[in-house]
Amino acid sequence: MKIRPVNVNTFRENVIFLRKDSEFCRAQTFSPQTKVEISFDGRTMVGLLNTIEEPILAKGEVGLCEYAFEKLGLPAGTEVKLRHMDPVKSVDLVRKKIHGEILDEDDYLQITKDIVENRYSKVELTAFVVACAQGPMEREEVVYLAKAMVETGHSIKWDFPMVVDKHCIGGIPGNRTTMVVIPIVAQYGLPIPKTSSRSITSPSGTADTMDVLADVNLSLPKMQEIVAKEGGCLGWGGAFTLAPADDIIISVERPLNIDAPGQLVASILSKKKAAGATHVLIDIPVGKTAKVQSALHGATLKKLFEYVAGHLDMLVDVIITDGAEPIGRGIGPILEARDVMAVLQNDPNAPQDLREKSIDLAGRIIEFDPKVRGGEGYKIAEEILNSGKALDKMNRIMDAQGRRQQKEPGPLVREIPVPKNGRIESYDNHMLAKFAKLAGAPEDTGAGLYILKRVGEKVKKGEPVFRVYAEQEADLGYAMEYWETHKKMIEVV
Amino acid sequence: MKIRPVNVNTFRENVIFLRKDSEFCRAQTFSPQTKVEISFDGRTMVGLLNTIEEPILAKGEVGLCEYAFEKLGLPAGTEVKLRHMDPVKSVDLVRKKIHGEILDEDDYLQITKDIVENRYSKVELTAFVVACAQGPMEREEVVYLAKAMVETGHSIKWDFPMVVDKHCIGGIPGNRTTMVVIPIVAQYGLPIPKTSSRSITSPSGTADTMDVLADVNLSLPKMQEIVAKEGGCLGWGGAFTLAPADDIIISVERPLNIDAPGQLVASILSKKKAAGATHVLIDIPVGKTAKVQSALHGATLKKLFEYVAGHLDMLVDVIITDGAEPIGRGIGPILEARDVMAVLQNDPNAPQDLREKSIDLAGRIIEFDPKVRGGEGYKIAEEILNSGKALDKMNRIMDAQGRRQQKEPGPLVREIPVPKNGRIESYDNHMLAKFAKLAGAPEDTGAGLYILKRVGEKVKKGEPVFRVYAEQEADLGYAMEYWETHKKMIEVV
Repeated sequence: MKIRPVNVNTFRENVIFLRKDSEFCRAQTFSPQTKVEISFDGRTMVGLLNTIEEPILAKGEVGLCEYAFEKLGLPAGTEVKLRHMDPVKSVDLVRKKIHGEILDEDDYLQITKDIVENRYSKVELTAFVVACAQGPMEREEVVYLAKAMVETGHSIKWDFPMVVDKHCIGGIPGNRTTMVVIPIVAQYGLPIPKTSSRSITSPSGTADTMDVLADVNLSLPKMQEIVAKEGGCLGWGGAFTLAPADDIIISVERPLNIDAPGQLVASILSKKKAAGATHVLIDIPVGKTAKVQSALHGATLKKLFEYVAGHLDMLVDVIITDGAEPIGRGIGPILEARDVMAVLQNDPNAPQDLREKSIDLAGRIIEFDPKVRGGEGYKIAEEILNSGKALDKMNRIMDAQGRRQQKEPGPLVREIPVPKNGRIESYDNHMLAKFAKLAGAPEDTGAGLYILKRVGEKVKKGEPVFRVYAEQEADLGYAMEYWETHKKMIEVV
Repeated sequence: MKIRPVNVNTFRENVIFLRKDSEFCRAQTFSPQTKVEISFDGRTMVGLLNTIEEPILAKGEVGLCEYAFEKLGLPAGTEVKLRHMDPVKSVDLVRKKIHGEILDEDDYLQITKDIVENRYSKVELTAFVVACAQGPMEREEVVYLAKAMVETGHSIKWDFPMVVDKHCIGGIPGNRTTMVVIPIVAQYGLPIPKTSSRSITSPSGTADTMDVLADVNLSLPKMQEIVAKEGGCLGWGGAFTLAPADDIIISVERPLNIDAPGQLVASILSKKKAAGATHVLIDIPVGKTAKVQSALHGATLKKLFEYVAGHLDMLVDVIITDGAEPIGRGIGPILEARDVMAVLQNDPNAPQDLREKSIDLAGRIIEFDPKVRGGEGYKIAEEILNSGKALDKMNRIMDAQGRRQQKEPGPLVREIPVPKNGRIESYDNHMLAKFAKLAGAPEDTGAGLYILKRVGEKVKKGEPVFRVYAEQEADLGYAMEYWETHKKMIEVV
């Protein structure tokens, strides 16, 4: 049959469309969740079967959703073979896990392989994720899963004795420390080839913010060249297939909002291992609106990170930070990039919290260097930042990646007045994030929110508290409408 | 926006299609697994958002997959409102269950309500199913789930002091005892309003086989009228919304092939309770290719059935039967219907295993009658069958439901020769089922397989062992092709 793209976006599920009256549908045992294997010249792909009628598909055509079409990577009209897929054997292992058994190293490898080859439907994937979350996983199992995730994807090799990296387990808006930390550490001389993700539900990911300043879509040779020359980079992680099983697992974990420690640790450490890191700083913000909400939970997680990293031949340093407040003033790609550059430029108006936290994290990474005594890292990092050398390094990294032309936020701007006299008690981070999204972030890079008043500041009714930026009138309208009905995002007492 | 059906069959997942450039997609926090609520005049429906491009959707149109369109039940072009759905609160309870907590009666009610209202995506539904399977559920929890399933659907009320029913937990092909049992029991005088399911993956369900003889699509008043007059019926269960949560849960349980005892028992007993049964015979076939593979497992299941039924004010009798072999000779709607009628007609060539098992089960149901001593049921049932009164009752039920014109199997027939001399040692039931499906069953009611030689019979090479029936040449071709490559479906020693 001939393939044909169908413009349906299913979000990371391979869906294969056939006509109900096609020979294939008639001839096969055809049921809900039936999986079909497409093959062409030794290449195969598995997808979930949905039926669709003319006029979308002609006779003899097999439709592929956008995700599947892109994944298969063959031109429309290519003649392919279809096969009813046999049940996936490793799903028996998932059933074993559901029944409470401990799986071994080879079991995790088989499951992970099938996941990467897209043999699991969302239902099977969810069954695996939930079974591992509920079990819970023994810490050996976390090691097996992490190793399997590394083995089933590409790995990057570096010619350095030490490669450092950092990771924040997340949840804090505007938290762009990475873009300050990397130039400091690279300038110090520890290789730090950093890759970050783009936003999925937030108003900007580190890769979106960096994309405002320079090209983040680096090929592997290009990244290696930049790191060899500058000691660091700020690329987009999606360009490499590092631990691809993790991305697929996350696609069901995220909507379920399950944060099972085993999966979290396996996910983060497998990506770092595949990226070639030897020393990793893990930042665990603890706070009411953060992922980790108690110090005790943070401490347990820290031990698991240490155990698993040890078995992957990596050294981790886990730091518990204050996750009570957003970091920086800008929310949205251009606005965040300006915060970062202000810190690097030692601008006295730069957000001090972003500066402090970045120096702190950079200092801890610098202390991975055996020559540095514990406690000296902060001062070294601060000196590099104050001297302007971190800014120089950032400029060289931007040039190496491909500097973008500077863009201003907006052009549409609206000031939001403080609703009453008093003191800012708190902000609702989730509402701030949605406010910025409605204004157009991150697709419209100039859109977002700029926070003029920090928590604790005294304010007068009518003074501006935020600036909302948008590129399009309609978006500004949606954002303002949201503000009118969600003024409780600011608590003034 | 205006609704428009999109001819995509997603198999029980509500999918709502929007164009990526629609205002709704632009304005909302839009991510994988985003759910959208459609509302019209107080009626609402929730679906998973997929994007789809022109020419399928025009501007201002919202597309609904077949399942969703049918469920919403509004004409194409109806103006509806769209709303981004807030996270479903009861998913927090699922997370609690994942973390090993015991849920209470109200928790199960909330979860079940949201499932019935289609607020759960397949991912969330799977999370619930797996969490309950792995836990495992305490037996009180099974009661709560069963009660919640009954409460969130319709229930049928009967004016009889006793209403009996039967259920086989399944897995045995050709097992059409129900169609023999019902006329015997109805003739005896115990009301037995039986509803059955259509095939999903098998070559025929009881409703498909009965559909050959009479209309099975009964309205509730019609069914009540028939039962009042004849004491029994053989309808299709899908026509009523009894315990609808169960159907939705099954849509993920089945592809995962998890048979958690708690869910199995809750599923069966909630349907029986909602159908108004007071006394239920549960048939648990135990055998290598059956659902339950050991007597011990069968015994545990029996206790759970008894406990839960007690809390639902029903009496169950659980019978463990031999599940080692298929029952009857025909596989496929018309062929099975002929087996059933041959037994009712006391035809000496009727399959004796079907006759024996049916009398046995009918006898056990008759013993629910307080007037009947334990052990007497079999004789009573046998007499009713031998006297021809069961046949008369079946004829009256068929007339009441709407008798169909008799149809012959085929018209295409092919005899399959025994591959070698010897004795039939066994059949592979799964392969026989697929063979019959390829020939066209159950869609082509005349298609299927007729087994000429039983397990244990001596055979000579070249003698016919099966007859394959098909309505269409192409299907006969697929079936024969399958036979050529799967001759091991017959083991001759």
